[in-house]
Amino acid sequence: MSIRIGIFGYGNLGRGVEAAIKQNPDMSLVAVFTRRDPSALKINTPAVPVVHADNVEDYKDNIDVMVLCGGSATDLPVQTPALTRIFNCVDSFDNHSRIPQHFAAVDAIAQESGKVCLISCGWDPGMFSLNRLYASAVLPEGKDYTFWGKGVSQGHSDAIRRIEGVVDARQYTVPVEDAVNAVRNGEYPEFTARDKHTRECYVVVEEGADKARIENEIKTMPAYFADYNTTVHFISLEELKRDHSGIPHGGVVIRTGKTGGGNEHVIEYSLKLDSNPEFTSSVLVAFARAVYRLSEQGVCGCKTVFDIPPAYLSMYSPEELRKNML
Amino acid sequence: MSIRIGIFGYGNLGRGVEAAIKQNPDMSLVAVFTRRDPSALKINTPAVPVVHADNVEDYKDNIDVMVLCGGSATDLPVQTPALTRIFNCVDSFDNHSRIPQHFAAVDAIAQESGKVCLISCGWDPGMFSLNRLYASAVLPEGKDYTFWGKGVSQGHSDAIRRIEGVVDARQYTVPVEDAVNAVRNGEYPEFTARDKHTRECYVVVEEGADKARIENEIKTMPAYFADYNTTVHFISLEELKRDHSGIPHGGVVIRTGKTGGGNEHVIEYSLKLDSNPEFTSSVLVAFARAVYRLSEQGVCGCKTVFDIPPAYLSMYSPEELRKNML
Repeated sequence: MSIRIGIFGYGNLGRGVEAAIKQNPDMSLVAVFTRRDPSALKINTPAVPVVHADNVEDYKDNIDVMVLCGGSATDLPVQTPALTRIFNCVDSFDNHSRIPQHFAAVDAIAQESGKVCLISCGWDPGMFSLNRLYASAVLPEGKDYTFWGKGVSQGHSDAIRRIEGVVDARQYTVPVEDAVNAVRNGEYPEFTARDKHTRECYVVVEEGADKARIENEIKTMPAYFADYNTTVHFISLEELKRDHSGIPHGGVVIRTGKTGGGNEHVIEYSLKLDSNPEFTSSVLVAFARAVYRLSEQGVCGCKTVFDIPPAYLSMYSPEELRKNML
Repeated sequence: MSIRIGIFGYGNLGRGVEAAIKQNPDMSLVAVFTRRDPSALKINTPAVPVVHADNVEDYKDNIDVMVLCGGSATDLPVQTPALTRIFNCVDSFDNHSRIPQHFAAVDAIAQESGKVCLISCGWDPGMFSLNRLYASAVLPEGKDYTFWGKGVSQGHSDAIRRIEGVVDARQYTVPVEDAVNAVRNGEYPEFTARDKHTRECYVVVEEGADKARIENEIKTMPAYFADYNTTVHFISLEELKRDHSGIPHGGVVIRTGKTGGGNEHVIEYSLKLDSNPEFTSSVLVAFARAVYRLSEQGVCGCKTVFDIPPAYLSMYSPEELRKNML
């Protein structure tokens, strides 16, 4: 009687979901769906079938929750609505500014299909969002701040790789310590982008490449780097592989505020993650449990982390939770 | 159309609730109930009536949620069930080991009366409990640790005051920094009580009192001090009033764990509170909003923070939350 999970898309996130299911004894993996040639895809759970995405509907009675592991730019805006016609779903849609549109599109379909789909799950959006909400509800007169890092930004790393002469690159987003401390001290600072984060780039270039030109192209790149203090380190491919092959990330949400009698308070939530995709996957899997439970209760529609009673995430019973965690 | 709140009990917590209501424009204070002589009680909201506890039932149609501000030792075990017969309620019952019994007693009555009662709200139990639950659901293979302080423990301060020759006292619980850092470093340490916290006592004694005897009585007091490294400072009443009149508290919940691929992660939630009762009150008021909303939906029964969809705590609409906080 375990919760039957499907994985749609098998990149870093899909592999993370596969690994996370093994840590949750009330769940089992039914199938991995891919748009590639299934016979060419080796997964880490040999007994589980790899199925072409075109045949996903064959599994409509065998999967309780589909965990979508595609990208937010082009995959999820299409896949989440399409799969919500057939399955309860969880996705990690992280394009913050487009969440209202995504919600509306998915909700319309979920209401029709009678399924539950939880969107924008992970750590930001996700756990960080929850902490922004809880902190603002508890301290309505206050201000919250989110800092990201130190961690690898895939988007910024990709932007560097597109520069002529660059072989490979890794970009770290780093919070400015003085800025974090000013927030913690209750100074309620106003920040520009530059004040909050710096960008550290580790770049491998072709032999004979013009490093001065590449460094300048990085530092002046609009949207990605121009508004930040950016440092560029040229390193060898060996160094990149040896020292920068992980995908760590993390950050902190801080809210400072005054209660009615004038006293100051600081609420802080921080994450230090050795693997961004594995942690995100673990969050997706916990919320998949909640989606299953909501669906069993006859609920349907699009949901976010804000709508989920925390107890629904846990494999423990309400009695156990009250006894051991409250 | 604001949410009509009653306050039952007017000590530090009751005054904190009164102050918090003023920060929440969708709420209004209807009455303060006291077991003392109402005419002798001055509250900080002059237009609001102070009513004797015996007459609380007169308000059964005028109060949406009653916030109970009595103590956990003797008040709440009696008051919460009694008032749940008449009102939706929130309490801050914090005797962790007796929560299951308190829940059962309150739930039986709430099911009968058709009311919602949320018990054990505040920061521990409360916000810390939520963070233990979220973190354990996301990192099922891991271990969590809760450290309290630096902050004033009322119970320990009272225990010192009962010693002969003591005029007044303030006891601070202080987390051991090396212990916190060992947890953060992912060392999964096993701790005794002594390893995690020290106890700092500031004590005012009568003229001519035997300080050596008093210090010894404190340091050897079972349950309260004997199992901890305890420091005793004798100070003057003036110093106590000048330097130790606040009621700060706080602490941190840390969970470290491995995801399925073997990567390590650290989740940390910390509070730094200038006023323990004011912060607790602010949490109670946010959850009172959730209790009101659940009751409006026809829900009844005993609830805890684990059962509440986070969005129910916020004065903002689901649309606003998705747009601005997700």
